[in-house]
Amino acid sequence: MLVIGENINASNRSVAEAMASRDREFLEGLAKAQAEAGADFIDVNAGAGQDAREHGSESMEWLVELVQAATDRPLAIDSDVPGVIEAALSRYRGERLIINSVTAEPERLATIGALAAERKAWLVALAMGAGGIPDTVEKRLAACELIMDHLTRLGMAAEQIFFDPLVLPIAVDSSQGLVTLKTIEQIKSRYPGARTVMGLSNVSYGLPNRKLVNRGFLLMAAHAGLDAAILDPLDAKTMSLVKVADMLAGNDPFCKGYIRAHRKGSIVD
Amino acid sequence: MLVIGENINASNRSVAEAMASRDREFLEGLAKAQAEAGADFIDVNAGAGQDAREHGSESMEWLVELVQAATDRPLAIDSDVPGVIEAALSRYRGERLIINSVTAEPERLATIGALAAERKAWLVALAMGAGGIPDTVEKRLAACELIMDHLTRLGMAAEQIFFDPLVLPIAVDSSQGLVTLKTIEQIKSRYPGARTVMGLSNVSYGLPNRKLVNRGFLLMAAHAGLDAAILDPLDAKTMSLVKVADMLAGNDPFCKGYIRAHRKGSIVD
Repeated sequence: MLVIGENINASNRSVAEAMASRDREFLEGLAKAQAEAGADFIDVNAGAGQDAREHGSESMEWLVELVQAATDRPLAIDSDVPGVIEAALSRYRGERLIINSVTAEPERLATIGALAAERKAWLVALAMGAGGIPDTVEKRLAACELIMDHLTRLGMAAEQIFFDPLVLPIAVDSSQGLVTLKTIEQIKSRYPGARTVMGLSNVSYGLPNRKLVNRGFLLMAAHAGLDAAILDPLDAKTMSLVKVADMLAGNDPFCKGYIRAHRKGSIVD
Repeated sequence: MLVIGENINASNRSVAEAMASRDREFLEGLAKAQAEAGADFIDVNAGAGQDAREHGSESMEWLVELVQAATDRPLAIDSDVPGVIEAALSRYRGERLIINSVTAEPERLATIGALAAERKAWLVALAMGAGGIPDTVEKRLAACELIMDHLTRLGMAAEQIFFDPLVLPIAVDSSQGLVTLKTIEQIKSRYPGARTVMGLSNVSYGLPNRKLVNRGFLLMAAHAGLDAAILDPLDAKTMSLVKVADMLAGNDPFCKGYIRAHRKGSIVD
């Protein structure tokens, strides 16, 4: 499973403060620590909302330069503002790259899809349209179909598309865990070339012991066909379970990856 | 998910010693502790091999009486010797009951199947014949087909059959996790009324941090369709994940079971 490290995100207060004070050391440390913990990609989010639309490009450019200098891991450019994504791409020198994210909304698909197609990037596509997260599998798949149609017309291959099935809190509706898991299965069955990616933490919103719930969901989603997860790679228990999931799914020949991680002391229970 | 507490098993040295010295207190404690920890059934295994065939009935009768006196949970009578199972049934006063286990071997199906049919018990059926655990999904399903044919001819309903897909160590063959998970999926798809049950620990044989691997496997198997697990209910982390799996699979309306367990302090990470 691909791990996209989520920690450099301006919605975290410490990251927002470090960005506001241009505290390079803190952010470089966060990039390096995630890479050392095994993140395959480092997500970079310079803010959202009105502020992002007005000043996001400058902050994003600064962040992209900073993280590239700190680690050799590829980046996931995390913004829904085409101008901010373009600004990030203008500074990004790597070849492998994720753009995170687009939705089924036509104008987003047109602009962000074009950027991804031109740069041959992988693109995270949220299974939703303008109306927010749909509460059924069918509606999420309808969004995926729109996305797939539009992106393939732009010349993108299914392999470039990482569908995010999305997850709503089970504390609000106990069927929502299954809705997400079934959406993953259906995406994998309808679009065999495409991949799936998910952030976990929404599922446990409002519940105690959220990390335990998130980890359980990660394992169930791995069996449903999840290819990548956006998570905190500094959570050693979660990273241990990523290794376990890969091994149990037959993706770790001779259990070499798991045993190597154990010898490094990074498998924790 | 149904939890079958595995602790009263003569293959555990402390249990064997307690049985040899007729240490009632130790074994009653083990039964009560499992019930308090949330086991739905208490497995009772009085020994295997030559010794079981010769002296198993007497030990089993003693154990069945003892555990029934200690807790009101139903039992899983764990033996592959028809005479020992019969001895257990002669002492068991409960209505709900699991017989653990039968294989696809015709003479076992005939004798143990008849006992289960007569007593209207649930029966654990291992997806294997005389040749040991098959290494492919197809061969395991062929064993299940033989079992289903034979048991339905004896008058058993699919609902009484708990297929054990079996698991071989992934340290020996990295595909074996998937073989088991796919066997579960196929059983659930071919026999919608039947249920599935599994012991987890074989999967991690030869690996470090075995419990972590077992727990990961439990979550993936839960998503594949596992209905019951034979496990150590005194392992609080595992029991917490059973609650998480039930909740995420939509089997815990309003997350009530999970939140109640949390308030009791029994959800641990």
